[in-house]
Amino acid sequence: MKSMLEGIRVIDFTANVSGPATTAFLADMGAEVIKVEKPGLGDDARLFPPYLNGFSAPFVVMNRGKKGICIDLKKPEGILLFKELVSSADVLVENHKPGTMEKLGIGYDELKKIHPRLIMLALSGYGQYGPLANRPAYDSIIQAMTGLMATTGFPDGPPTKAGPILIDLSTAMQSAFAICAALYAREKTGEGEYLDVSMFDVGVNLMAGTWTDYTLTGNVQRRTGNRYPYVSPFDTYPAKDGYFMICSAGDATFIRICDAMGLPELKSDARFSNLFVRNDNEPALTEIIRNWTKQHTTAELLALSVKFDFPGAPILEVDEVITHPHTIARQLPVDIDQPGRGKVNIYGPPTKARNHEIKVRGPAPEHGQHNRWVLEELLKKTPDQIDTIMSSGAMG
Amino acid sequence: MKSMLEGIRVIDFTANVSGPATTAFLADMGAEVIKVEKPGLGDDARLFPPYLNGFSAPFVVMNRGKKGICIDLKKPEGILLFKELVSSADVLVENHKPGTMEKLGIGYDELKKIHPRLIMLALSGYGQYGPLANRPAYDSIIQAMTGLMATTGFPDGPPTKAGPILIDLSTAMQSAFAICAALYAREKTGEGEYLDVSMFDVGVNLMAGTWTDYTLTGNVQRRTGNRYPYVSPFDTYPAKDGYFMICSAGDATFIRICDAMGLPELKSDARFSNLFVRNDNEPALTEIIRNWTKQHTTAELLALSVKFDFPGAPILEVDEVITHPHTIARQLPVDIDQPGRGKVNIYGPPTKARNHEIKVRGPAPEHGQHNRWVLEELLKKTPDQIDTIMSSGAMG
Repeated sequence: MKSMLEGIRVIDFTANVSGPATTAFLADMGAEVIKVEKPGLGDDARLFPPYLNGFSAPFVVMNRGKKGICIDLKKPEGILLFKELVSSADVLVENHKPGTMEKLGIGYDELKKIHPRLIMLALSGYGQYGPLANRPAYDSIIQAMTGLMATTGFPDGPPTKAGPILIDLSTAMQSAFAICAALYAREKTGEGEYLDVSMFDVGVNLMAGTWTDYTLTGNVQRRTGNRYPYVSPFDTYPAKDGYFMICSAGDATFIRICDAMGLPELKSDARFSNLFVRNDNEPALTEIIRNWTKQHTTAELLALSVKFDFPGAPILEVDEVITHPHTIARQLPVDIDQPGRGKVNIYGPPTKARNHEIKVRGPAPEHGQHNRWVLEELLKKTPDQIDTIMSSGAMG
Repeated sequence: MKSMLEGIRVIDFTANVSGPATTAFLADMGAEVIKVEKPGLGDDARLFPPYLNGFSAPFVVMNRGKKGICIDLKKPEGILLFKELVSSADVLVENHKPGTMEKLGIGYDELKKIHPRLIMLALSGYGQYGPLANRPAYDSIIQAMTGLMATTGFPDGPPTKAGPILIDLSTAMQSAFAICAALYAREKTGEGEYLDVSMFDVGVNLMAGTWTDYTLTGNVQRRTGNRYPYVSPFDTYPAKDGYFMICSAGDATFIRICDAMGLPELKSDARFSNLFVRNDNEPALTEIIRNWTKQHTTAELLALSVKFDFPGAPILEVDEVITHPHTIARQLPVDIDQPGRGKVNIYGPPTKARNHEIKVRGPAPEHGQHNRWVLEELLKKTPDQIDTIMSSGAMG
């Protein structure tokens, strides 16, 4: 079966999470991704625990299916090699501090001269310009700076970080989107592109309706716990053995919930007869629902939500997610054989396609693993040229 | 300036958030998006508050720059019109309950017969197959089902939902990526594609390192509040007027934090001399940092984090994010003139490009606003044909 990005070569000059995740998505779609790391330890993410016989498991997730080489960009031979490699490629992704590429002499303006069709994406915490452009950023910092933390948690509790590094990952999705749009455009025009994607801009885009709530009405959305403040019931409710999430926006769902509770009389209760009064009487409704959920286990509540067809869910722990029959059916678990290190199970890409293959292509590279391959096979260097490059220290 | 998706027509047969957000991203890149709504109220999202003279502001955000028509797919004339419209387009996005399109006779297999180059994306809560495929889903339900809630919040508190509907939005980013990859592939092969993207699969992909933590070591990550449990200092710390986020992974940053605190002696304190012992002595370190942060306002701590160059941030409220100089510099705020309704300020797309235009193209459509335009201009119907279609009720 064909792959959508077959024949596309990507130079991945990124480290940590959002950059590597961007090119991992492209690799899953069949692009040839060559990861360029600095000498020494390479990508800092190689240190992220836990380890598979000394090899970082999170590094496997973010660098699956890539080739890996080492280039020392402090050496002129390294810069030459980098430029030659970029010239052979379609896409370059980098996530260094803004200005770094220019200082090294491999900024877009320079690379464009030797490769006008190049699509280059610069990924950063705050973008390539703006007053915060030079500030260091982590996923958590961006969660703090975009309102995600201010709106997560309970009204009587502190601002709360979303557990996973989801701004990193959604920035990768946005970046993969931008790259593919530019690849499509290049087919039409022959022109390359320079793309600037930041975790900050993506984080703001994740905030959705909170923006117009403020610009239109002046309302600053704050923390409302697990409750969606505009409709009811829409919250987590206590069960015998945990919590159960119930979401009901319309009257039809509410009626089915009344039946599930065995309280059909609520269907004609004036306090709950439509969306607006239900929400006005939320405390009374919440008490009724809690009295019901408390008598059941989450498994019983789930069975009732299936039987009566209303949106309900237990709060699954990570192990319950990974081993869930639906997760298996969606082919998300993937076994990776990391040569010389052993096997590790990771998750695969979120998109399924009928006519093209989207899948994890293989293990992550060891640091510098494909140095010789790049010189011999890809750049077709002679043995003498290879010796010269290797002895210069340009590849570490 | 050109647009990357110039000349691409997208039929948006979606409602609520993740579907409309997908095609909004495509519209920002220059695609012509025609939103198809059911008769009556149309997209349920038209009811989402707050309202701009009776027009939903969140609806503007998710449907900016689109044309809008109404088709009654219960009528055979409606089905014919829908098929004709899809035949004229490059991309179809739908987010109905799995099986709905097939029941209506407009499933992929049917549409492929009349338009083999069609790229169709089906977006759903759980995907087109798998044991949960028919379960109803909201962003919050998927947060519960993917481990996001289980890993968000404090160790002594309940599982916590991330405030914004960020799975909806990141699913839109992933979907836009998949569509553009398929558009690129179609240029090479001439073949269309059927894509299946689910909020569940995307939500699992947002969980990042939690997966291998379990599959490799059996560790089930649970709630750790605002603390990242592998390094220290990495948490929110109390200031005089709120909280301040400090993230430090490496030794270099820690040394700068010691200087910022005016406690250079900590740099040679054996308890804090490297990553590992710092984390082992996290309670002691946290107490020292808290004693320092408590004496300062968040503004003072921010100034110190800039002066000493370490990753730190105040927890911004939504209004502080929207009015932040960086948000302005990144050109995120966009004024929309919604004809007959007034002006509303929304946020724009997260990707910047140098050679192509990416921007909000205009207001959201009124329900059925472009019915006549589609018949006259796009499908070039005769006045008689238009009368026949209109009187059939196929357009509501």
